[in-house]
Amino acid sequence: MLGRTYESQNCSAARALESVGERWSLLIIRNALYAGMTRFSEFQQSLGIATNVLSARLDRFVADGLMELADGTDGQAQRSYLLTDKGRDLGPVIMALTEWGDRWSAPAGPPVLYEHTTCADRVRTTIACQTCGQDIELGEVSVAPGPGARPEAAARIAGRRANHRVLHN
Amino acid sequence: MLGRTYESQNCSAARALESVGERWSLLIIRNALYAGMTRFSEFQQSLGIATNVLSARLDRFVADGLMELADGTDGQAQRSYLLTDKGRDLGPVIMALTEWGDRWSAPAGPPVLYEHTTCADRVRTTIACQTCGQDIELGEVSVAPGPGARPEAAARIAGRRANHRVLHN
Repeated sequence: MLGRTYESQNCSAARALESVGERWSLLIIRNALYAGMTRFSEFQQSLGIATNVLSARLDRFVADGLMELADGTDGQAQRSYLLTDKGRDLGPVIMALTEWGDRWSAPAGPPVLYEHTTCADRVRTTIACQTCGQDIELGEVSVAPGPGARPEAAARIAGRRANHRVLHN
Repeated sequence: MLGRTYESQNCSAARALESVGERWSLLIIRNALYAGMTRFSEFQQSLGIATNVLSARLDRFVADGLMELADGTDGQAQRSYLLTDKGRDLGPVIMALTEWGDRWSAPAGPPVLYEHTTCADRVRTTIACQTCGQDIELGEVSVAPGPGARPEAAARIAGRRANHRVLHN
């Protein structure tokens, strides 16, 4: 039985995957964020997943502060699951995943396009430098220890940088 | 038993999660991409995961074209797992996940910083419009059917757009 957490990893990507790394999690968030779904039955019908799995995912989102429960709107008895700022902030993760799938696994072309509402042209995730402001390639990105690094990890990363180790194989 | 695929979902994010949505997958790619790891023993020691799980993940990466196997370098008997372009292209996904974790789940500050090699300042993922070139907020992003959309999905998305349905709850 594989667990859900990554205690050994002092890493923000690992922390994020503890909240949204389980099967179906990011697709539920996708439907809430980009298709405006809020109700259990909407998620269940659109995804076709077992109700106990959906229930566990939504419960976790509420516990982790990605969604909050509200009384049903417009006379509906079912309660609504509303994304919080923390949940909505996963938008760039979903867009980056979608773009990768569009490039490598969409032989008929992208099923869905993300557009700028005012321009109606496509939007893309890019990597930008805070100093020079330029869009940069992944090959120009290097890793440095941050304030939350453990000492041994900071030393390891610093050692790699000193060795000018090439990040790309 | 939950499966690995999302047949019901005609979605590039779902296709991406079929390649890298299983437990540990993105953390293995992270270590290959940003820590330069190539060998089974490096991944195993850094992640502390069961060898059968690691083996299954690496086998899938090779089968899906995210990694390729090469003979061991510098006299090592162990073979190397080298990222392909397809595997390296997951960099923005990992960065977006890391940034989310930095914002919402790193009380001691980010453990790792991504920097622009030439500027040594931090890089971030942004969402940019291809027409106006501006960095845009998630609230300005809307969804449109793409060339790979199934007819019923295209009609559903078009209907939502016609209703001016607000994407953010």
